Amino acid sequence: MDHQQRAVAAASEHCAKSGSLVVGEFLELLRLPNVSADLADVEAVAAHIVTMLSERGVEARTEQQPGVAPVVIGHRRVGDHLPTIGIYAHYDGQPVVGQDWHTLPFEPTIVATDGAIVDPAAVPIDPDWRIYARSSSDDKAPVQALVSALDALHDASLEPTVNVVVLFEGQEEAGSPDLESYLTTYADELKADVWLICDGPFHQTGQPQVIFGVRGIAQIDITVYGPTRPLHSGHYGNWIPNPSWTLVNLLATMRDATGRITIDGFLDRVVQPTDTEHEAIAALPEYEDALLADLAVRTPEGAGASLVERMYEPSLNLRGLDGGEAGPGAANVLPTKATASLDIRLPPGHDPDEMLDLVEEHLRSQGVFVIHDEPSPALLASHDVVARVVRDPHYTGMRVPIDAPISQRVLGAATVAAEGDDVAAVPTLGGSVPIVHFAEVLGVPTIITPMANHDNNQHAANENIRIGNLFYGVRMMAAMLTIPGFET
Amino acid sequence: MDHQQRAVAAASEHCAKSGSLVVGEFLELLRLPNVSADLADVEAVAAHIVTMLSERGVEARTEQQPGVAPVVIGHRRVGDHLPTIGIYAHYDGQPVVGQDWHTLPFEPTIVATDGAIVDPAAVPIDPDWRIYARSSSDDKAPVQALVSALDALHDASLEPTVNVVVLFEGQEEAGSPDLESYLTTYADELKADVWLICDGPFHQTGQPQVIFGVRGIAQIDITVYGPTRPLHSGHYGNWIPNPSWTLVNLLATMRDATGRITIDGFLDRVVQPTDTEHEAIAALPEYEDALLADLAVRTPEGAGASLVERMYEPSLNLRGLDGGEAGPGAANVLPTKATASLDIRLPPGHDPDEMLDLVEEHLRSQGVFVIHDEPSPALLASHDVVARVVRDPHYTGMRVPIDAPISQRVLGAATVAAEGDDVAAVPTLGGSVPIVHFAEVLGVPTIITPMANHDNNQHAANENIRIGNLFYGVRMMAAMLTIPGFET
Repeated sequence: MDHQQRAVAAASEHCAKSGSLVVGEFLELLRLPNVSADLADVEAVAAHIVTMLSERGVEARTEQQPGVAPVVIGHRRVGDHLPTIGIYAHYDGQPVVGQDWHTLPFEPTIVATDGAIVDPAAVPIDPDWRIYARSSSDDKAPVQALVSALDALHDASLEPTVNVVVLFEGQEEAGSPDLESYLTTYADELKADVWLICDGPFHQTGQPQVIFGVRGIAQIDITVYGPTRPLHSGHYGNWIPNPSWTLVNLLATMRDATGRITIDGFLDRVVQPTDTEHEAIAALPEYEDALLADLAVRTPEGAGASLVERMYEPSLNLRGLDGGEAGPGAANVLPTKATASLDIRLPPGHDPDEMLDLVEEHLRSQGVFVIHDEPSPALLASHDVVARVVRDPHYTGMRVPIDAPISQRVLGAATVAAEGDDVAAVPTLGGSVPIVHFAEVLGVPTIITPMANHDNNQHAANENIRIGNLFYGVRMMAAMLTIPGFET
Repeated sequence: MDHQQRAVAAASEHCAKSGSLVVGEFLELLRLPNVSADLADVEAVAAHIVTMLSERGVEARTEQQPGVAPVVIGHRRVGDHLPTIGIYAHYDGQPVVGQDWHTLPFEPTIVATDGAIVDPAAVPIDPDWRIYARSSSDDKAPVQALVSALDALHDASLEPTVNVVVLFEGQEEAGSPDLESYLTTYADELKADVWLICDGPFHQTGQPQVIFGVRGIAQIDITVYGPTRPLHSGHYGNWIPNPSWTLVNLLATMRDATGRITIDGFLDRVVQPTDTEHEAIAALPEYEDALLADLAVRTPEGAGASLVERMYEPSLNLRGLDGGEAGPGAANVLPTKATASLDIRLPPGHDPDEMLDLVEEHLRSQGVFVIHDEPSPALLASHDVVARVVRDPHYTGMRVPIDAPISQRVLGAATVAAEGDDVAAVPTLGGSVPIVHFAEVLGVPTIITPMANHDNNQHAANENIRIGNLFYGVRMMAAMLTIPGFET
């Protein structure tokens, strides 16, 4: 048994013996509301995490730019001659407004597989129990995993073999608007040999995975205007234009019947998988049929492409659509406006601003007068169709080669932590983490090392983490802290 | 001065001398919440109206079928040899949920033209003051107008020259599901020579109008399903189908770029205006340019057709569209379902059920599996697109000839009440009132005699009535009560 294997065994034993302490401390963290826009809330979370880290000998502090959520920065120096790994996670979570939770999002609740609520102190812990709370998976879990791994190593008198630098962000779900600036400001102390992006879920098969790329993200809201006041649909309908119809017509021009995006230029920069990536994709476990069955979906989009292959293209998702209340609360009126909110996932090489320009250009090609502020009645009266666009360009995507030495060492650490389970090596994630800034600002390779279960209801109501996955996270952190010395 | 002119003069004087009593009694009526689904509320409104009528010597009572809003039936017999007019209005109002009112919908507030709130007892009353409240225009106003006209005639010792039968409904905004049944049950006592449908607004020019036809209405909700739980848009988007995109694509097939409805068979039964109706349309005051300017709309739909000409076709209005929250509250997910609520306005000869069948047939022609109940996951998994349809067929439309003797007498009464203003004779209204049941069940011609201002925000927030229009209503009722003897 080498040093790394002993560290993982120590983590495993720590979870077995002191699992309810691990869980208990995690529940405390989950009780803290963490929507990024609520500044006092996220400041409290950051301060709480600083305390958690400091208790484990990590030299930690918050740094905060005016008016935005702070970052937590931490250092654990082991030796000057040793390599350094960076550990990134985000402690903020998606908004919960309008979501229908079974339990309250900030009152973490442990639920057994039979649906029974479990006392937090109950032992032995069933790894299939789940903790329900906002950010239980996305993305407070790595914070807990790191400090519990440090406890495990300490209890077993094992030293890390790498220096560790920690960056926990509080704005990821808001699109990481200030991450680049934080990285730039603290670039000197954030240098590392690799940054581990601890975010995202396990593979859809339930298997651990390491991911070597992500898509970026841009968002756009399109609001189309109708009459200046709501109108009776009988007296005015189908003569005065209804903005919901206008919006529907515009959206329908953006994709064809197969789901292929028809915005001019949108797919021009797509780079198909390399041969190595095709091999890695082919080696991934089969899960698509099970996924479709689980979701009650008969036919996916993409004209036969696999889910991973689809990640090589930019997506255009209609994340919100509002043209007045539908169903029993609907009224017989023409609304004054209708809004669509779209998110665009960006493979490497797709500039967010350029992609948003393409959407705007598409609107113009459909005869739309595009504006960026609230229109005046005079402006509305002088154009057939006016659309207000709100742009959120965020960031682009990136990928690192699966066959690089550092990639293989990180994959190796995850494999030790997986205790016999296969670890999937995934060329790219569909989701977005602000990984590109680490490469651009710090010049450091970044690799994603997730710990959450794939069915965690991330971003939605009833987000949860399987306790077995939390414990995998503790072992994984122990393995990463004891990566054998590597050349960079 | 003939009897009718004396009656109108008496009504005019009553409003001038006792206008604040008229307004004060009306405010009491407006304070009573009247959403049809809230049964206790509408029962209280009906009982209140019975009291109002009884105080004026109208023999009034409520009749109620189990579990639905009651009707108010009233009789004022003047002489067996005299003709009988029926007066219909509805005392229920549109729901107010989700609407943004400046003042509360059931706390009626009088507002001057400069925006100042006016004391209800203030005199002299400016006819341009408005009363803001749900149903101030649509459709409690005729109730007040009738009882105040009876007061005016009584004070001037003038007798009606017709027998009067009153029917006030409490389910109109819910589509009058039981009106036909109420008419059938009480058919004997509801016989009349003409029914006056006291609903709807003045002409868009602000001019009084009498209307000789209406469109019917049918409603349909279409819900399209996606994955069985909300999904992260990055990890699954553009592979797992998004129901909002599916809905958008389906809706876009229902109309062409000019707004013409492309559902097969939808326009097959359209009957264009007769020569007489074309003449009446040509004689209507010019208002379209002013309306478009008022609403800040540059180009109407309909390829050059006038607003009234559009009323000869069935409409398809997208009254509600819900595919998850759009704008700042949007989350990066694929929703599990998306819903569109549509209303269809029906000219005479368009059967509501047949029209809804055509919509369903259209969905099927687009490859949709149409259901009428909540789908099971197994059902969703065995079809590419499943749509749940909720049908509300309601009723069809109708028109009566403008040149019939009774039409001309009613137009004449409105003209006396208008005190010199031109009265527009409109072949058909765009909106829907359940006029067809009177013809079908009772075999009686029905004519619409509106009193509300055209800019009353009917169905929407900030519904209001101009007090001048309320007083026109009092004069109009006086004129109708004293229509010269007519042959039927």
